[in-house]
Amino acid sequence: MDNSVIAEIKILPFGTETVGVSHILADCVNVLEKATDISYQVTPMATIVQGPLDRILELVKEMHELPFSQGIQRVVTSITIDDRRDKQITMEGKVKAVVDKIQGR
Amino acid sequence: MDNSVIAEIKILPFGTETVGVSHILADCVNVLEKATDISYQVTPMATIVQGPLDRILELVKEMHELPFSQGIQRVVTSITIDDRRDKQITMEGKVKAVVDKIQGR
Amino acid sequence: MDNSVIAEIKILPFGTETVGVSHILADCVNVLEKATDISYQVTPMATIVQGPLDRILELVKEMHELPFSQGIQRVVTSITIDDRRDKQITMEGKVKAVVDKIQGR
Amino acid sequence: MDNSVIAEIKILPFGTETVGVSHILADCVNVLEKATDISYQVTPMATIVQGPLDRILELVKEMHELPFSQGIQRVVTSITIDDRRDKQITMEGKVKAVVDKIQGR
Repeated sequence: MDNSVIAEIKILPFGTETVGVSHILADCVNVLEKATDISYQVTPMATIVQGPLDRILELVKEMHELPFSQGIQRVVTSITIDDRRDKQITMEGKVKAVVDKIQGR
Repeated sequence: MDNSVIAEIKILPFGTETVGVSHILADCVNVLEKATDISYQVTPMATIVQGPLDRILELVKEMHELPFSQGIQRVVTSITIDDRRDKQITMEGKVKAVVDKIQGR
Repeated sequence: MDNSVIAEIKILPFGTETVGVSHILADCVNVLEKATDISYQVTPMATIVQGPLDRILELVKEMHELPFSQGIQRVVTSITIDDRRDKQITMEGKVKAVVDKIQGR
Repeated sequence: MDNSVIAEIKILPFGTETVGVSHILADCVNVLEKATDISYQVTPMATIVQGPLDRILELVKEMHELPFSQGIQRVVTSITIDDRRDKQITMEGKVKAVVDKIQGR
């Protein structure tokens, strides 16, 4: 997976009648589930993806549109891109780099 | 400016020798200065732009690449998109909506 | 203003009936208006404050509680703290450092 | 765990000579490892904690100070607090609410 970045995606729908929004977020994350060329994981505060930056931005635009198609009138979407070019990073590797150092104490 | 969104952009270069990074950020913001089809403002914590989403993402990709061309090896870029479709919002209007309510007390 | 930090505050209320939330945000920002020991400014995407970290966190907790007292059931609050100890930074100075470099081209 | 919130913590040290910063982050996360009254998990883009808000802010302040004690001159720390009061949420529950809906398709 050359030149891939790791990115965090948050999609926040506003003006929903319900406090919980997991039914809307599930539709958004389903875009990533169907995209077989990137990997992703759902965390309690965001969805994290790994893949080429152009492809990720394409998918985020698709995810960002979904709540509007369900009648939502305002969506705040955040993307944070971690792009490191001195060496290839992976989602697992980033976690392991921190956790291993703690366990080694 | 139809279908425009307001977006916040943060570009954080890592592994710089210096603590201050304004020389790098100025190069990034200069991309927006040269783009005559969007408006932007620099705040103490981010740069905020208004324009069509596709155009903004195009500019963010250009901004994100600049630190690498100066030898930086890791860049963390965040974009937060506020997309409201019940009415057109502007950067000035969002601030005014909050400030006027405070001053009216 | 010794040992002060610059921080960005975002308060997002969920499950509101209305798409606009400026009436709720104005109540939150009013906490800063009444606090005479810190400085703040409202931007289109966040409110930015400068002051001692402990005092800022105290004010953010107060701001975070306000929407609940109005019947809101879910609030997502973000704080980003920029703490630089090699030299004193100011909100104006951070903007000027970037903008001056662009205008000098 | 009454009145607990879920919060995302990101600690970014600047002006480090190295591009990787996991050795610094491990020190920060170790503060959570030693705190037996909250639960936490490390993700590829942030550390997520669950516990009472006051306790979490106390721990974040401790984490935020650590890089300075190692000679770092600038630290940018972000906290995002998800506080839902209509029902108790958990880190596992938030992920499950989204993932179950995708798998049920």
